[in-house]
Amino acid sequence: MINTFCKAPLHEVTRELAVVAQGQKAADTVILNAKLINVCTAEIQESYSIAIVCGRIAYVGEDATHCIGEDTQLIDAANRYVAPGFLDGHIHVESSMLSASQYARAVVPHGTVAIFWDPHEVCNVLGFEGVKLMAKDAARTPLKAMIVMPSCVPAVPGFEDTGSAILADDVAEAMKLDGVVGLGEMMNFPGILFGDTNAHDEVAATLEAGKIVTGHYSVPETDQGLNAYISAGIRCCHESTRFEDALAKMRLGMYAQFREGSAWHDLHELARVITNPPCEGFDTRFACLISDDTHPNTLHSVGHLDHIVKRAIEEGIEPITAIQMATINTAQCYQLDHEMGSITPGKCADIVFLEDLEQCKVALTMIDGVVVAQEGKELFELSPFEYPEWATHSMHIKQEIRADSFKIAAPVGAGDKVLVRAIEVIPARVGTVECFVHLPVVAGFVESDVESDVLKTFVFERHHNTGTFAYGFAKGFGIESGAMASTVAHDAHNLLVLGTNDEDMALAANTLIESGGGSVVVKDGKVLGLIALPVAGLMSNDSLEEVASAVAAEEEAWEKIGCTMPSPFMTMALIPLACLPELRLTNRGLVDCRSFEFVDLFVDEEANEETAVR
Amino acid sequence: MINTFCKAPLHEVTRELAVVAQGQKAADTVILNAKLINVCTAEIQESYSIAIVCGRIAYVGEDATHCIGEDTQLIDAANRYVAPGFLDGHIHVESSMLSASQYARAVVPHGTVAIFWDPHEVCNVLGFEGVKLMAKDAARTPLKAMIVMPSCVPAVPGFEDTGSAILADDVAEAMKLDGVVGLGEMMNFPGILFGDTNAHDEVAATLEAGKIVTGHYSVPETDQGLNAYISAGIRCCHESTRFEDALAKMRLGMYAQFREGSAWHDLHELARVITNPPCEGFDTRFACLISDDTHPNTLHSVGHLDHIVKRAIEEGIEPITAIQMATINTAQCYQLDHEMGSITPGKCADIVFLEDLEQCKVALTMIDGVVVAQEGKELFELSPFEYPEWATHSMHIKQEIRADSFKIAAPVGAGDKVLVRAIEVIPARVGTVECFVHLPVVAGFVESDVESDVLKTFVFERHHNTGTFAYGFAKGFGIESGAMASTVAHDAHNLLVLGTNDEDMALAANTLIESGGGSVVVKDGKVLGLIALPVAGLMSNDSLEEVASAVAAEEEAWEKIGCTMPSPFMTMALIPLACLPELRLTNRGLVDCRSFEFVDLFVDEEANEETAVR
Repeated sequence: MINTFCKAPLHEVTRELAVVAQGQKAADTVILNAKLINVCTAEIQESYSIAIVCGRIAYVGEDATHCIGEDTQLIDAANRYVAPGFLDGHIHVESSMLSASQYARAVVPHGTVAIFWDPHEVCNVLGFEGVKLMAKDAARTPLKAMIVMPSCVPAVPGFEDTGSAILADDVAEAMKLDGVVGLGEMMNFPGILFGDTNAHDEVAATLEAGKIVTGHYSVPETDQGLNAYISAGIRCCHESTRFEDALAKMRLGMYAQFREGSAWHDLHELARVITNPPCEGFDTRFACLISDDTHPNTLHSVGHLDHIVKRAIEEGIEPITAIQMATINTAQCYQLDHEMGSITPGKCADIVFLEDLEQCKVALTMIDGVVVAQEGKELFELSPFEYPEWATHSMHIKQEIRADSFKIAAPVGAGDKVLVRAIEVIPARVGTVECFVHLPVVAGFVESDVESDVLKTFVFERHHNTGTFAYGFAKGFGIESGAMASTVAHDAHNLLVLGTNDEDMALAANTLIESGGGSVVVKDGKVLGLIALPVAGLMSNDSLEEVASAVAAEEEAWEKIGCTMPSPFMTMALIPLACLPELRLTNRGLVDCRSFEFVDLFVDEEANEETAVR
Repeated sequence: MINTFCKAPLHEVTRELAVVAQGQKAADTVILNAKLINVCTAEIQESYSIAIVCGRIAYVGEDATHCIGEDTQLIDAANRYVAPGFLDGHIHVESSMLSASQYARAVVPHGTVAIFWDPHEVCNVLGFEGVKLMAKDAARTPLKAMIVMPSCVPAVPGFEDTGSAILADDVAEAMKLDGVVGLGEMMNFPGILFGDTNAHDEVAATLEAGKIVTGHYSVPETDQGLNAYISAGIRCCHESTRFEDALAKMRLGMYAQFREGSAWHDLHELARVITNPPCEGFDTRFACLISDDTHPNTLHSVGHLDHIVKRAIEEGIEPITAIQMATINTAQCYQLDHEMGSITPGKCADIVFLEDLEQCKVALTMIDGVVVAQEGKELFELSPFEYPEWATHSMHIKQEIRADSFKIAAPVGAGDKVLVRAIEVIPARVGTVECFVHLPVVAGFVESDVESDVLKTFVFERHHNTGTFAYGFAKGFGIESGAMASTVAHDAHNLLVLGTNDEDMALAANTLIESGGGSVVVKDGKVLGLIALPVAGLMSNDSLEEVASAVAAEEEAWEKIGCTMPSPFMTMALIPLACLPELRLTNRGLVDCRSFEFVDLFVDEEANEETAVR
């Protein structure tokens, strides 16, 4: 695949590189005194030099003095480790709540030079036009933000209303674009397994274009289903949570992307594949490191792939192996190893300096031969991106939302309590549990039961003014008073509201309608914390620092209303995600995600004796 | 890159594979009881099964009974090793003197399932039309004969006359063809180093098409020149003869193709890179095994990649590493690892059974799910290929060749001897040495000196009836009487004649003119051995057995006339190859291949005192 994410395509500059390599012309830049991390042979080469011209590497060797001219920029690596820039093989920029350019600002100082970005969140809201808009924003930065075309919009067709829908024809069209290097995570693995036409057609369109199909196979099954999924041409998967999942994928020639995101920490378990391999000489070329979802505060205070590489080393993976997992292995996964992923002649000069190997502290990041970050600070200027109105005004809710919008009428003939099925969330886990609880009925309406930690939950369609909404109950947030709302509500990103009382729920909802989307916590008629995310209701156009600070404030607000789980907004945001078990709530209703059918909120106690309260 | 060398492209059969993997439909074939050589993780997996449908692998696992239906073909591997079929990453079919289909017949039983074939010999004679013709012949067999477009036709422009010429525009056109997966060995490495327009344009056209540029960097220089060459986008090279060459290439991200051909045995030296690596955990993913040139008798009696893998193991390389070098590494080199090179779901079912690991004896070869060879015997029928007349009548020599055609007039005023520069050949080496010898002058003509082993050598243009020819002297063949001639005469493949007397030389030449080309040995007016190669003057249309037998007979004939060097016809065939040092003879004259200039046969003794006879 030809890659256009470079200063100059290789085919235009072969002469230039060849003459510079031989010193017949001066290099633009020469790096001296590098402890080169050679990811091709897994060696460290001491006292190396690298000569760069046209944004690409012309020479790598022990002595580049012949490449140095009067105008050559000299960079003394001062005996630091010099590695290929890090590649994130699976990532959603939107999870950072940042605009694409601010995301670049956040990750480039941490050594990330390229991302393989599945923009399915923004696509759900704004369609492919929204993706192109974000790509345009990203292109203002040095970060190589390569797109994998969202494959599952909506995530579960027929069960929710999204802002847009992607079909196989859209995928085929997108594959013609240079900036699109593959297909985004094929979450519809049941569709692949059971012959869904659109799922297979999307994969086929990608394969026919010679591009890469990325996966999402999230069940702990490693035999028939996994074989079926891989046989359909799906090349990588970031959804291994057990070491045997990752091992099975690698054995079947699938790139196992070990995930270490803000909320999901798979690395501790998965590293065992490498630290405790099934045989001597175990080949790790099919293992990669990826982030998937990273929150702004993680990016701000912890880092990105530098942190993940460090974590891999902490888990006992050899430093060079860990760096291969974030560089050449990912490049080979995408068949872009002729462009990136190693410090070798002809490749883009995407390079990081590391203070040390264990901490993986990035001292300098170079992209296409230009130093773009140093000592944790980006060196490129960014003006705010000018979004068109359709991108920043995506709250299209038909009805006026008032306190009485949240009244839930009890079934006719109900007594003073009713049995309902509720969604029980589990801290720091993506799964939910279906549970059955008795709730009080007051004046004909079912109420939340704060004592039992069971709260009203509403989802309002916000894309097409359809006025559709649905309700249910969520258990497990520990909230004692107040309400929360969010338009980050996977994957349709409708307006999700949850709370102890109708007044606060209305205030939370209306605050977000006013702010153009985001995440809010209210209590007793007051807004305690607000992250305004006007871009598609998912992202801010503010700086990383501002967004991280808003997130920190909101985390405090969550605590103030009694919720102490880690990343509660992430757990909350998954309530509508109908592709994960067991019970979810979309704008169309309660969905049993094991049988994929809508289910009633109210349970007929006599007819369902087996559903005794668990 | 989409590969069309398969029964069905993956994008057409993803549904089929997925359902078979899960047993919802029966497989075409199931392999049972395999000791699977997993080249992805470098493991051996005992008691494995493989289910196949549409020519591709649907399932790999411990139990494929769910894939077995009434019509499923069951193949019991009987606990033998089961590996991916072997891929030869650099090979010239023409060196085998066989037609492409007979070549396939020869190598498939040895486990070769795919070749990356640079048909530059036939291209020199018949142009790209000849290449297409051979590809058509190859396509009648199961062997995946992928073409890398010849890049250097002629090998050294301006110094010889070939049947055709390839320019960058031709390369750009060829890249549009599905069967062309890259550019053939860029032998013009000086052109790459010194900015030759056509050389760089050919590379650029290939890179722009997203295809692979293969290399030929034959000098023992691993710093500036090698960096320059690789920086121009050249991805692999089979011309390492010292272990440090191969190591340098791997370190610079170039696939080092370890060669073990009939005449050139590099493996003993190169294996040291892997058996005595520069560091612990040395990564070998950039090392491959290839054959380059294999003669019919080698193919007939020794084998192909099975032999080379065995040789690698003999040199101390771990069996799985050696097999990776002939499978997945080569597939990754060509970015075709999504199609071939591993036994994993979705890939073409190109599989070999091995009796053991050390001897690498191939018991069965499967291509696209069909058993195509078993116990050393191909299982496909071949009728002789119908060549058009232009392909089998390529001897276009203007002049009538008689004994007096070989008279070499001495310079005016010469005495009874003259000083000439001669080409000294070295057994089993590609290089020659320029030497200076005194030769007798009889009746005004310079004669061969059999006692000193210095013989007249002529090259006649044979492509375009130009009537051009040139002459010189060759030293080192040890021939006592008679003459040899060959139209296998790299790379222009003009008619090369060498001998002790003019009469036998004329007979040798005319015998080949009559046979449409080939290789001949004559003595005292009799033909002692003839390999008729009417296809382009390079290949026979006979069977492997017949050609091997003719070659054996000719080897005996060589001995009869006194030549005892190994593969003398190969050494002889390189006399005109003006891209290798030091002195060569083309149809245009004697070429000094260090300075790339024509030089005189006769040396002025007084003016050149330093050229005292060496």
